[in-house]
Amino acid sequence: MDLRQRAALSVSFHKMTFPQELERVAWAVERRLGELLGQDRAPAGQDTTLAQAMRYAVLGGGKRIRPFLLIQSARLFGVNEDSALDAACALECVHCYSLVHDDLPAMDDDALRRGRPTVHIAFDEATAILAGDALLTLAFEILSDPRLHQDPAIRAELVLDLAKAGGWQGMALGQALDLSPERQGFNPADVATMQALKTGALFRFACEAGAVLGRADAADRAALQAYASFFGQAFQLADDLLDAQGDAEALGKAVAKDAGRGKATLVALMGVDAARAQLGVLLEEAEAALAPFGSRAETLLDTVRFAVSRTR
Amino acid sequence: MDLRQRAALSVSFHKMTFPQELERVAWAVERRLGELLGQDRAPAGQDTTLAQAMRYAVLGGGKRIRPFLLIQSARLFGVNEDSALDAACALECVHCYSLVHDDLPAMDDDALRRGRPTVHIAFDEATAILAGDALLTLAFEILSDPRLHQDPAIRAELVLDLAKAGGWQGMALGQALDLSPERQGFNPADVATMQALKTGALFRFACEAGAVLGRADAADRAALQAYASFFGQAFQLADDLLDAQGDAEALGKAVAKDAGRGKATLVALMGVDAARAQLGVLLEEAEAALAPFGSRAETLLDTVRFAVSRTR
Repeated sequence: MDLRQRAALSVSFHKMTFPQELERVAWAVERRLGELLGQDRAPAGQDTTLAQAMRYAVLGGGKRIRPFLLIQSARLFGVNEDSALDAACALECVHCYSLVHDDLPAMDDDALRRGRPTVHIAFDEATAILAGDALLTLAFEILSDPRLHQDPAIRAELVLDLAKAGGWQGMALGQALDLSPERQGFNPADVATMQALKTGALFRFACEAGAVLGRADAADRAALQAYASFFGQAFQLADDLLDAQGDAEALGKAVAKDAGRGKATLVALMGVDAARAQLGVLLEEAEAALAPFGSRAETLLDTVRFAVSRTR
Repeated sequence: MDLRQRAALSVSFHKMTFPQELERVAWAVERRLGELLGQDRAPAGQDTTLAQAMRYAVLGGGKRIRPFLLIQSARLFGVNEDSALDAACALECVHCYSLVHDDLPAMDDDALRRGRPTVHIAFDEATAILAGDALLTLAFEILSDPRLHQDPAIRAELVLDLAKAGGWQGMALGQALDLSPERQGFNPADVATMQALKTGALFRFACEAGAVLGRADAADRAALQAYASFFGQAFQLADDLLDAQGDAEALGKAVAKDAGRGKATLVALMGVDAARAQLGVLLEEAEAALAPFGSRAETLLDTVRFAVSRTR
């Protein structure tokens, strides 16, 4: 996209529908990820299997919902999209690394993702492990690069927040709990805790990163974190409902996997009707959390509505 | 160690032999890593299998040669050991994560490391993958934590340097090349390139981090980088010689593994005598690189001599 096209899109932004806006941002993220993982950045201009596997894992679709949340959160505080784009890409690298490792035979053992062979199938297991490692590492390279933001305090804070969100007290712990033998005996509170770590932590980072980039005050950060927390729960519950309803098309991956593996989900524990009711409550809570921002938060409101509307 | 013991050690530092100094620093690193990975840092005070696997991977010995290099490089520029200790621990976390992942069945498939079962044997494969991921993430958490250094520019620079050293154009690429099928046809230059990435990158980071912490000028940084490069080559060549000579005791791990896997090492390609001669040249070059620092670099000189002396 040249500058003129970009300007045209910018002018017409407020006339876009939410799905159009989501698609436009996903496209911008895809393009920037392609640059960040480009062949021209390879050592001595030489492309490698590792770099190919990383691009395979990251490029080629996805809703880019986490980058979208980050960019829209930053926009709340007047940060323009270009300034938030690299942080959004770093977050997506962490999300994609987690998918590559979660799909490994020793973990969830999935052969398909977004309708394509998973990385360890398309390449091999060693390459998938290394591509995941390298994507995780790249995320921190992107966040700490002076091109991301001129203020090193902002860069260091983003690194710290993402490391905490992704690490041994965040996403990695959530995945460990999800895989643990004790998982069979989980009650709804345990499942909620696990999911708050496994999928919630990156959503919370998305919103926090927007606030960091926008130098938001404590009250605004707290409001946005509350929104992120409800958003994460709603997103996961909607995913579980789609899985339980066996709606492979809407979910974009194999269904009823959790039940097949004997993994208790909140939907299995509370039933479909109660889960649907809970989804409505979460939507209201997410909306209430955004109230202080008024009409500025319209797109974030649309985002949680979108996440919930995937169920029928 | 209480403050009195620490002070006593500090006073007696200049009387210590090199092995004593190496051991003292290894102990300080071990202690700090134990704090950084402590149970009290676990969420809700609850220890997890993941945290246990991380401690198993990191604690319990090793020469801690990378942290030692970092601390001694920082000392060149007047940075005291306490101020360099956390950066040294972050580096060791990355080194240990790489060992955990390299040992996996899909990679080098090793069951023993430092005389103990590897992480995927002591725990399971999924836990080993996650513990490696979490250690890599923790390294960036440590580096970006304001406790490491008050200046965020220093923290962000350390993150950027470590991410580059460990990532898709550094260590991860080196491991990918080491595992690639093309590896069989490697000539000495290819092997040297692979090793400069796989093991050299973290040694270079160790010295660079010391320079960053010490706000060293460009000339000093370049000299230290030259030293690090020769050090890395010498360290790897000594390792390969020990492997070829089958000296399991000195090496602390199974020997003749590389030959058994059909992996060409520089020793196999050039022969033991030529490798020994090369080791002498690298030692001289490392010493020459340190010349600008005069007697301040005595411990770094001892360190490369130590690395070379492991062969007989």
